[in-house]
Amino acid sequence: MRTIEMNNGVVKMIDQRKLPRQFEIVECRDYGAVAHAIKDMTIRGAPAIGAAAAFGLALAALESKATTREALLRDLDVAEKILRATRPTAVNLMWALDRVMKQAQTQNLDASGLRDWVVAEAQRIAEEDVQINTAMAKNGAALINDGDTILHHCNTGPLATVDIGTALGCIIEAHRQGKKIHVLVDETRPRLQGARLTAWELMQYGVPMTLIADNAAGHYMRKGKVQKCFVGSDRVAANGDVANKVGTYKVAVVAHENGIPFYAVMPTSTIDMTLAHGDDIPIEERDAREVTHIDGVPIAPEGVHVGNPAFDVTPNKYITALVTERGVVRPPFGENLLKTMK
Amino acid sequence: MRTIEMNNGVVKMIDQRKLPRQFEIVECRDYGAVAHAIKDMTIRGAPAIGAAAAFGLALAALESKATTREALLRDLDVAEKILRATRPTAVNLMWALDRVMKQAQTQNLDASGLRDWVVAEAQRIAEEDVQINTAMAKNGAALINDGDTILHHCNTGPLATVDIGTALGCIIEAHRQGKKIHVLVDETRPRLQGARLTAWELMQYGVPMTLIADNAAGHYMRKGKVQKCFVGSDRVAANGDVANKVGTYKVAVVAHENGIPFYAVMPTSTIDMTLAHGDDIPIEERDAREVTHIDGVPIAPEGVHVGNPAFDVTPNKYITALVTERGVVRPPFGENLLKTMK
Repeated sequence: MRTIEMNNGVVKMIDQRKLPRQFEIVECRDYGAVAHAIKDMTIRGAPAIGAAAAFGLALAALESKATTREALLRDLDVAEKILRATRPTAVNLMWALDRVMKQAQTQNLDASGLRDWVVAEAQRIAEEDVQINTAMAKNGAALINDGDTILHHCNTGPLATVDIGTALGCIIEAHRQGKKIHVLVDETRPRLQGARLTAWELMQYGVPMTLIADNAAGHYMRKGKVQKCFVGSDRVAANGDVANKVGTYKVAVVAHENGIPFYAVMPTSTIDMTLAHGDDIPIEERDAREVTHIDGVPIAPEGVHVGNPAFDVTPNKYITALVTERGVVRPPFGENLLKTMK
Repeated sequence: MRTIEMNNGVVKMIDQRKLPRQFEIVECRDYGAVAHAIKDMTIRGAPAIGAAAAFGLALAALESKATTREALLRDLDVAEKILRATRPTAVNLMWALDRVMKQAQTQNLDASGLRDWVVAEAQRIAEEDVQINTAMAKNGAALINDGDTILHHCNTGPLATVDIGTALGCIIEAHRQGKKIHVLVDETRPRLQGARLTAWELMQYGVPMTLIADNAAGHYMRKGKVQKCFVGSDRVAANGDVANKVGTYKVAVVAHENGIPFYAVMPTSTIDMTLAHGDDIPIEERDAREVTHIDGVPIAPEGVHVGNPAFDVTPNKYITALVTERGVVRPPFGENLLKTMK
């Protein structure tokens, strides 16, 4: 099944907090449940969050008892604000909400027609995500050579999107094309998306891999064991600075120092041309328990003070290229992103 | 109590695998038990391992039924080989064993006298460690300014030594001197010595601190929140390359990129002048379960392939200075280490 899908007024998503131990489906029957699922990371990954937000609006449309177009738009507006507040860093969330809300206002439809339109638009966003990821996977796979070992941070596979994936989509596509590759999988503390999700996905697809502590990535890079780094992205600024899962910046600096190409992969919906540079991207601070506990088991002294930024910003100078569905964007990013986004 | 001590033929050590949840003392009554405790990291930290190895030989001397000097030396030789094989990277282990064994051979004593001498020599090694660490702490504290936030990797506190500590000893000493400092504590996957031991120790001493995932260190460095990095060391080559807990290399490169001074702190017994550079240092590969399980809880798919190097090597160009009991050694390290080690 896809990471998220909607049928007959029910949004179903794979519970990513339970993998790899349990494969469970969560059913959301109202937009509040979708907002909760985004916030608690039942669903995560920038593109998947975008689709989830759109499906949230679709459920809000179905829930609404409005009988006029205006009343329905007001109800959608309330839902939109709650969905928007769930996570601050990934721009796909805002992008999907903006797309549905702006177009909804221009549809010349009555309440019933608009209701159907919102549901259909959410389905289109999900469907387009799969198509976009398929194109990105091809563009990224072309950068991978036979024999490469690729370092990967966080999770960017099918589970991070509606299907196919972003950075991991490129890697899986290269494997499908018959290239002999190996993946070094950063476990990605604190939430361990690499150990829990990426390792599990690569094993499903039969891609040769080695799971490592994030701390070990530098050792392998310095020893010449890594030929490429591939990561996803939660928001890209107009100058090519990349906000992504915390730890990405360290990987990028060490890759740069060792002359290893560093690629960030994202749909153009992740690129926020309204932000001049990465330091304008808000960085989400998450619960201390993500650091102090693992599956409820305490791993630090009680009452310890914790810092837990969920993302960091990698300045454009460490990035070899941005891989999008429209092609591979190389420096100078300011200029070339403008062309790509036209 | 000290991290390790020996009284009446019993070696007692704090069980560092159980902290911070339980404070337990392990008693070793034969050298095999000491070897096991080093291998399974009941005791860890390069200087503490050195003292443990010496106490292991002391127990071997007491265990031996030899009635001649030559027979006792043969029994010590057997024990020495088993103790030496426990962990390959920390040179203090080899240093302590070499010191006891070489001097034992030159002592003009009968079996009974030599037995007493070995026990006394182990006690001297432990006692000297405390004195050396006290001197190092003063030398390192002088590098720390009022208002500094210091990033620290792994555990180098009193628990990593017989007492006082190495890098963390400097930090605790600066705090004792009344400097207002803050410590960013890398949790230090895979074994979480930062979260479990360093955080606990700093809380005991009342030093203000924040625990972070290793991945977050780059974010804070790039944001200008870190003024110094302090780490310990498991082995230093003659050119100043430093082998230390895996992840140290990433910290050093990112510190260098951000113009943050990076200090490695170690007794001169950690400096191995027989090695020209760091790539000659053997890197211990440890059990996959350190990565795939936390306190017995699986955090990765069953059967996943794992890489788990316990250490990495930081080339000398990323190191601002080496802090030893004999003073602060600055580049060029080759030349200045020769002078220091004379």
